[in-house]
Amino acid sequence: MEAGTPQSWQERALFKKTNVLSSVPPEFFHSELSHSTTNTSSVQHIPATILSALETEITALDVSGITSSIAAGKYSSVQVLNAFTHRAVIAHQLLNCCLEFPYQAALERAKTLDAFFNASQGNTVGPLHGLPFSVKDQCRVAGTETTCGFVANLGLKDEKDSLLVEILQNAGAVVFVKTSLSIGCMWGETINNIIGTTSNPFNRSFSCGGSSGGEGALIGFHASPLGIGSDLGGSIRSPSAYQGLWGLRPSSGRIPYHNILNSMEGQETIPSVVGPMCHSPATLVTFLRTVADAEPWHTDPKCQPIPWRPDVFAKFTSPDTKLKIGIMHWDSEILPQPPVRWAMKNVEEKLRAAGHEIIPWKLDQKAALKILLKVFSSDASGDINRTLARSGEPAQNLITATTPEVPPLTLLESWGLACERLAFQAAVLEQWKETAKSGTSAEVMDAYITPVNPAIAPQHGHYAKARYLGYTGTVNVLDFTACTIPVGFVSPDLHKADNVNENADCVGAEIPPPTCELDVHIRKIYDPEVYKGMPLTVQVVGRRMEEEKILGIATILEKLLG
Amino acid sequence: MEAGTPQSWQERALFKKTNVLSSVPPEFFHSELSHSTTNTSSVQHIPATILSALETEITALDVSGITSSIAAGKYSSVQVLNAFTHRAVIAHQLLNCCLEFPYQAALERAKTLDAFFNASQGNTVGPLHGLPFSVKDQCRVAGTETTCGFVANLGLKDEKDSLLVEILQNAGAVVFVKTSLSIGCMWGETINNIIGTTSNPFNRSFSCGGSSGGEGALIGFHASPLGIGSDLGGSIRSPSAYQGLWGLRPSSGRIPYHNILNSMEGQETIPSVVGPMCHSPATLVTFLRTVADAEPWHTDPKCQPIPWRPDVFAKFTSPDTKLKIGIMHWDSEILPQPPVRWAMKNVEEKLRAAGHEIIPWKLDQKAALKILLKVFSSDASGDINRTLARSGEPAQNLITATTPEVPPLTLLESWGLACERLAFQAAVLEQWKETAKSGTSAEVMDAYITPVNPAIAPQHGHYAKARYLGYTGTVNVLDFTACTIPVGFVSPDLHKADNVNENADCVGAEIPPPTCELDVHIRKIYDPEVYKGMPLTVQVVGRRMEEEKILGIATILEKLLG
Repeated sequence: MEAGTPQSWQERALFKKTNVLSSVPPEFFHSELSHSTTNTSSVQHIPATILSALETEITALDVSGITSSIAAGKYSSVQVLNAFTHRAVIAHQLLNCCLEFPYQAALERAKTLDAFFNASQGNTVGPLHGLPFSVKDQCRVAGTETTCGFVANLGLKDEKDSLLVEILQNAGAVVFVKTSLSIGCMWGETINNIIGTTSNPFNRSFSCGGSSGGEGALIGFHASPLGIGSDLGGSIRSPSAYQGLWGLRPSSGRIPYHNILNSMEGQETIPSVVGPMCHSPATLVTFLRTVADAEPWHTDPKCQPIPWRPDVFAKFTSPDTKLKIGIMHWDSEILPQPPVRWAMKNVEEKLRAAGHEIIPWKLDQKAALKILLKVFSSDASGDINRTLARSGEPAQNLITATTPEVPPLTLLESWGLACERLAFQAAVLEQWKETAKSGTSAEVMDAYITPVNPAIAPQHGHYAKARYLGYTGTVNVLDFTACTIPVGFVSPDLHKADNVNENADCVGAEIPPPTCELDVHIRKIYDPEVYKGMPLTVQVVGRRMEEEKILGIATILEKLLG
Repeated sequence: MEAGTPQSWQERALFKKTNVLSSVPPEFFHSELSHSTTNTSSVQHIPATILSALETEITALDVSGITSSIAAGKYSSVQVLNAFTHRAVIAHQLLNCCLEFPYQAALERAKTLDAFFNASQGNTVGPLHGLPFSVKDQCRVAGTETTCGFVANLGLKDEKDSLLVEILQNAGAVVFVKTSLSIGCMWGETINNIIGTTSNPFNRSFSCGGSSGGEGALIGFHASPLGIGSDLGGSIRSPSAYQGLWGLRPSSGRIPYHNILNSMEGQETIPSVVGPMCHSPATLVTFLRTVADAEPWHTDPKCQPIPWRPDVFAKFTSPDTKLKIGIMHWDSEILPQPPVRWAMKNVEEKLRAAGHEIIPWKLDQKAALKILLKVFSSDASGDINRTLARSGEPAQNLITATTPEVPPLTLLESWGLACERLAFQAAVLEQWKETAKSGTSAEVMDAYITPVNPAIAPQHGHYAKARYLGYTGTVNVLDFTACTIPVGFVSPDLHKADNVNENADCVGAEIPPPTCELDVHIRKIYDPEVYKGMPLTVQVVGRRMEEEKILGIATILEKLLG
């Protein structure tokens, strides 16, 4: 380190926190704005009061609108970069969601794209020409720091992009901001010792979720059109749910994790996956197709050589296709809060009304969760603790206890756990086959729909007591493909309007008695007045590697839900 | 256990050994035949002196000949089953290669197939209608014992077929024999405490190799047209090489391992894979297509949803395709014995003569082997020892020491090892990309060819001192797709004829000085008179999941090599 460089973890963190915006043009910074974790008002209206008309127009666009406008010569790549950077700076000032803006490199790249476009009379370098995108601060971007939420990683500059970043940039996209995350990606809120807590743009007294919460907040604020998150127990889907986004958790081996930093590296029993978060299934499709077309399996040894499968996507978006969808309103463990039950019921009814077949579906999420949590704690936080120790920063908000009450698993125990997980996966595949016998169609179900979480986004400080990974984590144990589906927003009138109240059980039976303290707690904390305006989201889940099908069904659901 | 059932491991093993043939018709047993581990004569001529003309005719056929003859009504399924069972009994008497004949079940199945065929005026139940196949005794077959080479597993009857067995049987095939293997699949000869040592049909003083050596001996004796082996460090390829067979080691996740017994279950750093062994690339193609068509990924959570890819296979079998092939004559560690060098040179020359492009290729097999052996010993034989302890049988012939001189890896150490392996894989993928710069074509190489082993099949008792897994095991570390290519047989005249002698280096340079004691030893033990008549085999290797390409190239090589 250079002489005079801060040495204590607090100083190193403060240096980073103070310098998050140091590279962006000063005119994007607005001194009247500041972060709050208590203000309950939505901040979604603020950008329109600050941005130029052009910036507002650009940042209102979805990915297809952005890329087609640039390709048509309507905006330059630099204009688009600046519009999103400006909005992202505002997001960071209000929500504390970013860790680094590699603005100079992004600007150079945008200028190069514009120069190419102009010199070639309107050719683009690829399908994402000029599209800014954000990445969770696990993704390496040459010249930036990649922290994975750890102070210890500050000061280390990446020499090389993560493969996924490289692929997107080769397709013309421009990485413009790195977003905050929980320490080692191991918590469902976005809190770390570097910049602290990230807030939810719909209500800053709420968490944005985690661990990909910086992405959730930023994209939820329309300050990035496409972001990269990662998901080991729900880390893409919870922030997507809490901000009303479309987030894809692909199966492992579909999207390259190559050269992306993580905690617990080498833990392969239940692998973390990376995936996109955005505002439409169309963007998810563009993302997946672009990545598959780049044949990442020739670089990433963990990627499977599965190209984009247009026939599958076409089949599931055809108006003639009648879906068979399993619905799991709840898992008989933790009852979703009333608006979540309303969202599930709403989706079910829309599907039925459109002529799709609904069958009941139930998974043993308690068993899955037990396996997942065993994997999380298998090293007794050994890996995370040694990274924390490198800087001296304290452990906080980690799903695995960092004072080892139980020792790490032996190697044989961990092999046993891998077998346990495999048996669970195999049993669910058999259960899936059995759905051929449910309903009128003799086919197995196409997908199932469940809540993302039983609770609406947690207020700051409320997560630890109310966390339940059953709905998200079961998908990780199964390595299934899941996509979040925004359904609406919490409204105090919702229950009356849809004939669902706190005492009504969406599954058509009497509301069941609580199963445990957590179930009691999650029921108790729901307050329509407190939660009003928060997004409501469900997830649609397919088997391993069924991304095209799930994106097809997501496209159908987008239309049905309006 | 029933009263009177043998209790000591020796009694349990003897009971099994004595009863291997107890279910087959007595007329298939020939009391004049017996196993020898010292007789140096080939036994390949013996069946013709014992079998009926029809049995000889049937067992001379390859898979396509068998299935087309049955489909044409020329032979019944029962006739074919009996012909191969008769030959397999002879094989077992001479080579000691089988553990169980589920003859009654196989006969019932063959009768059912014949009844269906007759009742339906010549329809078949699937592409493998009536085809007998053998399985390494890791594959479960309902009603049989599956030992995986352990005495402890005797007496436990399988309730359910392994998925792969089920798929093949659903396609019309008939599992008719379970073949011997090394203890826990962890040795390159086929020796266990149940039936002892299996011999090579070309010369019974030689080993058949291992761990899938029962398959090697049986198929090499033409007593099974198709067998299932498994490969964690070369266990399909070494027996295939030593018996001159076509053996496919697919990448993990291509062929279902579901419900196949193994040692070290849950070890996922370098997974074992199952694959076919047989007499032609056409049979490998039939096998892979049949398995892929059954969509095993809907049952096996580890299987990838990759269908049979006819376009890739067609491309690589087209007469217009000019291949770019890397050749690694040796790895700069252990020099192959002269006939192996001749085989490599022969393949290279045939490819060149046919207009294909050859480029040099070299892998750091020393580094790969280090990783592989670390994985093998990662649990300090903890899993194998506990299985051995269940019966009290002694450890013998295990690649990992069973008296732990080093403790098992901690979980964090094993995660580190997984990262080390991943980095090796990624580095080789980069190296593969670099081949675009070699030779005249700007494409990367299609595949590379290496020896399977530096040594010809070992004489009994010689393996331990001469074993080197560098050539096979590197493929396992990379999880690449490999196929063995039979090239010819050792002949004392080979060197002169092809201008390759013990002092000539096939790589076109002076013969290098030995690198280590093992290198010295493997050079020293070669004796043209002792090894004459033994098969010579090389392997062609593609990247992960490139089975169709490798089978296409194998098809080309079959034609080139005559």
